[in-house]
Parts: sequence; C-alpha cells; structure tokens
Amino acid sequence: MTLGFEVLAQDGAARVGRLATAHGAIDTPAFMPVGTAATVKAMTPEGVAATGARIVLGNTYHLMLRPTAERIAALGGLHQFMNWPHAILTDSGGFQVMSLASLRSITEEGVAFRSHLDGSKHLLTPERSVDIQRLLGADITMAFDECTPFPAERAQVEASMQLSMRWAARSRAAFVERPGHGIFGIVQGGVHPDLRRDSAARVTEIGFDGYAIGGLAIGEGQETTFAMVEATAPHLPQDRPRYLMGVGKPADLIGAVKRGIDMFDCVLPTRSGRTGQAWTREGSLNLRNARHAEDKAPLDAECRCPTCTGHSRAYLHHLTKSGEILGAMLLTTHNLTFYADLMAMLRHAIRDGRIAEFELPGPTQ
Amino acid sequence: MTLGFEVLAQDGAARVGRLATAHGAIDTPAFMPVGTAATVKAMTPEGVAATGARIVLGNTYHLMLRPTAERIAALGGLHQFMNWPHAILTDSGGFQVMSLASLRSITEEGVAFRSHLDGSKHLLTPERSVDIQRLLGADITMAFDECTPFPAERAQVEASMQLSMRWAARSRAAFVERPGHGIFGIVQGGVHPDLRRDSAARVTEIGFDGYAIGGLAIGEGQETTFAMVEATAPHLPQDRPRYLMGVGKPADLIGAVKRGIDMFDCVLPTRSGRTGQAWTREGSLNLRNARHAEDKAPLDAECRCPTCTGHSRAYLHHLTKSGEILGAMLLTTHNLTFYADLMAMLRHAIRDGRIAEFELPGPTQ
Repeated sequence: MTLGFEVLAQDGAARVGRLATAHGAIDTPAFMPVGTAATVKAMTPEGVAATGARIVLGNTYHLMLRPTAERIAALGGLHQFMNWPHAILTDSGGFQVMSLASLRSITEEGVAFRSHLDGSKHLLTPERSVDIQRLLGADITMAFDECTPFPAERAQVEASMQLSMRWAARSRAAFVERPGHGIFGIVQGGVHPDLRRDSAARVTEIGFDGYAIGGLAIGEGQETTFAMVEATAPHLPQDRPRYLMGVGKPADLIGAVKRGIDMFDCVLPTRSGRTGQAWTREGSLNLRNARHAEDKAPLDAECRCPTCTGHSRAYLHHLTKSGEILGAMLLTTHNLTFYADLMAMLRHAIRDGRIAEFELPGPTQ
Repeated sequence: MTLGFEVLAQDGAARVGRLATAHGAIDTPAFMPVGTAATVKAMTPEGVAATGARIVLGNTYHLMLRPTAERIAALGGLHQFMNWPHAILTDSGGFQVMSLASLRSITEEGVAFRSHLDGSKHLLTPERSVDIQRLLGADITMAFDECTPFPAERAQVEASMQLSMRWAARSRAAFVERPGHGIFGIVQGGVHPDLRRDSAARVTEIGFDGYAIGGLAIGEGQETTFAMVEATAPHLPQDRPRYLMGVGKPADLIGAVKRGIDMFDCVLPTRSGRTGQAWTREGSLNLRNARHAEDKAPLDAECRCPTCTGHSRAYLHHLTKSGEILGAMLLTTHNLTFYADLMAMLRHAIRDGRIAEFELPGPTQ
C-alpha cells in the first residue's frame, strides 16, 4: 500500500482515522468539496483551505474535455494548475459520462461517447481513465466503473456490477504505484444486499488502497442508502478507508459515519450556495425567502466563517435576490465551513465515545 | 466644510492630497471601485480593501429600489449592511435613472420614472436624492443632476446644465451637515468649454465640499474629455477635491491626473474582470484568447495581487472559457489591484516631480 491510513479511534462502527497522501494528511471522517473543472465553484483555493478542507475532488470527465489531461500535465499537474497544495481525489469519469455525454455506447472495452461541449468523439476505458488521473496528478485515483441506472431490474444490476468488477481489475492493473498515491475500488450492486456483498468481496480480492461505495444517492432514499452501507461496510477491510460517493445532506453524513464511512463528496454545499440555500446547525435556510429581508442575525450564530462573523441574513437575502456573485461566494464559504465543522464534530464524538447519540439540533437535518 | 481635504504635493496641475472622511482617510489621486448594489461585484469587502481601495461608490438608483434606502437605514446604514468599514461615496441616481429606468418624465421638480425591476413608480428630486444618500450613510453625497444626452444641440445642453445648477442649489440646501461627511457639486455643460466654465463658476458660488465633472466618458472621446477637464479644473477651488465621474481606462486616468483630477470611479476594472479582460502594466489582455491556453506566466509579473502570485494565464484562460465564477473573482481582484497600484504610482510620480513624463510601458494604455 502506498497510501497511508491509520484508524485512531473507534466507537461502534464509526472510526476516526488519518489518511496520508503525497499532499498532506487528512483527518477522517472527511468531506471532500467538489472542484469539478479545476475550481471549487465560487471559491478561491485559499478560501477552500480556510473552511478546513484538506482534500478536494476533481472530475475526470470535465477535465479530459477541457482543458484536457495532457495540457494540465504540461502545466505541472492539477495541484499546480488550480494552486491547491493539499490532496486531490479524482473520480473516474464513469458517472458523468453517463449523465452528461451524448451518444454513449458501452462495450466490454469501455464507453465511447461524444463531448457535451463540442460533440467531439472520445473513448473512456479503465486504462485510459487511470492514465488521465495519473496525468492530472491525483493523490487518489478511482477505478473506472459503470454507472448502473436506477431503478433497474436485478439482472441488469448484476450484469452491470460484474462489468464494473472486471473494469476494477483492469483499473488496478493499469495503476502506476507512486509513494503517497493510491487507487480506490468501487463496490456496486444497486439496492441488493447480496450483490453488494459479492461486489465487496471481489474488490477486496483485487486489493485497493481504499474502498468506495458507488451507485447510491441517486434516488433510492436515505433508508436504502443506509441499508446498503450496512450490507457493505462490514465486508470491507477494517484497515483501509471507506468512501461513500455522492453523499449528501448533513443527516446522511451523520448516519453514514455511524455505519463506518470515512470519506464523502457531494455537490450539495457548493451547488446550494449558488441557489441561495444555507446549511446550519439549526437546519437549512432559503435565503431567497422574504422573512430574511430585515434579519440582522448571522446564518449560524455558532459558526466561525467570515460569512457568519461579517454578514447578516438580510444582506445575504439582498445579494441572493439581486443575483450577485458575492451571494454565491459567501453562502458557499459558509456551507463548506459548516460541512468541515460537522466532520470535526463527528470526529470528536467518536473519540469521546458518544457517536450513537450524536445529532444536530435542527429539525431538517 | 465638514469633509477634510489637504493638498500635500503639487506637480504642474497634478496634486497629491488626503481626503478625511468619517470612515477614514483616502490618499488622492484615488480610484473608487463601483459597488452598485451594495457589493463590488465578485469581491468580498476584505478583498476590496486588500487591493488598496479605501473608498467605494454605491448607486442610489439601485439601492433605493432594492433593498430600499429605508431598509438599509434600519439595518444600520450601507457601511454595516455591506460590511465595508472604509469610506463610501454615493451617486445621486441622476445618471442611472436616465440609462436604466423606463417611462421617465423630467420636470423642474425632478424625474418621475418606473423601476426597471418591477415597474413601480418613483420620483427622484434633489431633496429626495440627498435624503436617500443620508439614509444610506454616505460619507460623500453627490448633488442630483440631469444626465444630458450626448450628442445634443448646444441649446439643449445649456438648458440641461442650467436645470442641473438649480438642482445643485436645492441639493446643497437639502444636505444635512455632519462631521466627516460632505456633498459634492457637479459641473455640466457637455463639450462646450464656455458652458463648462459657467457651470464651474455656478457650483463654486453655491459652495460644496468637493467638485465633480459630470457628463463625460459617454462617447465624446478621450481628447474631448481632456479638453473639458482643462476648461473646467482651473475654475474650481484649489483647496477642494475634484472628481471626474465615470472615467476610465488607465490612459484616461493618467491624463486626467496630469490635468488636476483627484478622484475617479468606473465600472471598467470590475466589469471587464467578469468578461475575461485584464489590465496590466503592459496593456490589456483578453483571457479568452487561445494564445493564453498554455501560458504559465502570471497576468503581470510585477503585480502583488493573489491572482498574479498564485495563478497562471493558462488557468485564467481555462476559468474564463469555462464560465467559472472564480475567473471573475480572480480577474476583478487583479484589475482593482492594478488600478489601486496605478494611483499609487501616480502619487509617487507627483511627489517626485516627474508626473509630466509618467506613462505605462504598454502599447494599449
């Protein structure tokens, strides 16, 4: 294993850990802000680091199309390109090629598709995906997998999972070992506990630096997400990090941490920051609502972020209603700070042996 | 006079001065970033201050419509509302009511119009404009004037100027004196030197804390702008600040400072930051241009701003082409820093007695 991981404390299924990458250490459970096109939207890299984040996610699909992996490599890699000195995990492109590209055709070899930007033809295979992620300089590479549609017949889910497992083995074989860098495998299997178990056994057999649970948070509901985590996590190696992809709302993160998840990514805190939604200890707020128009209070009285220490809900309401870029900047800053602080609260609760009772005061979490 | 101003150095017509407001001192010549709707677009207030700016401009027309002057007053004034501890100058609304509102009707009393946001009816008079600016808490209030169309017949320009002079007297009478706060009169008269002289004499007779030259930078060309400054500045009090409204490009600022101007405002550095244009010591750059796609150099090797110390032209090209908010944030940061630094360079040149030779190296300034 070239990527360090240590479990430092455990409370029930929940763990506190430390992931050691070529670009610094990350305390887990950790939330990774999404930096799709080499930027966490509406944030400077210094601003992202100030929220507490020490790892961000980059999207292979977006970056391979613009500015291309080869250009980023020529410019010194993704860290230097976006001036982010901390760790980067890149996804494999498998999810977004299915949600964004057109004229897709899936074969055993990989996925042929046309760019949503200019219609140009591309082929993503496990080998090409892993190579792109190497060119980007990702600290953590994700295995290339097929994004199984939801809902789907069991037979289709099983066939898709089996294809992803064959691609996982090819991804693992294509990965070039480098100190402080690693590759994660992805468990698939839809909403079927036995398929999830089979998939977990297979990725563990292949052997990765970490293990992701994919294909969830796409409409199956929180109860099912948690059931799939429960069906999967116990079958993954105890000494390796576990990453629940694309999750989620604060309550989703809390429930998944209690079930043994160490890492998360989601567009929610950044995307909702651009649409006037704030996440706080007391629940979520829609800043477009007129009830905030004359409210001098900050978003969250306990929050340390510059949005909460410097600005009122009334001002954020005004910015949001006026479509001002600063509204997106300030709300994204707050939301990412809240997510980072929630992760810190969860780590403390695990160390203190009180994760089972942990919850936020608000009604909508 | 309740607003302090001292001329500290002079070189030809150019002056270095210090303006003392209730919210701190401003070294002149100074450029004021435009903060239309209670935000300098795509900038945090801390970011604006870091560029070196110590005064921003707020727009009465925008703020009276949303969130309204009364609401801002109830929330503690514009400084507190936008969390900007330094000085604020507000315009009178006269210019924007003519360029943005619909169904305008101008009478001796003022301008009746409908909001461009919701069609609601409003009336702006000299008294109402000055009162709105008081409610906002402006350190510097501007007299309400009529925006003369350009081009226009001389008779129309003269009638418009005379109306603005009657409104200037009413604005002055409506202004409530407060320590560290002041009101500026505005010289009109189109492109006619004799009308400019008459107008300068009239506003000086009324007596203001500072004197603006309005109705320029609207298509008359740089040579005419400079000619009008030359026709006006010598007829304004030597011991009071002079403000050339709505100007301009770096070369416009340099030429106007040489002719005795102390203050400027313009949307150019902020607006062009949102459309991929950067202003540098070597000229202006369009970051959308493909020639920047693989350029590792910063925008301006001599610039101290975080955009230039942290990011390449290649990255800025990528952000601009991708429509990323961070592109607007980084380019606006750079442009405002360059404008602030240009003002500092001009102040040094005046103190050193070399303002006549001052120019930037670039070809497009």
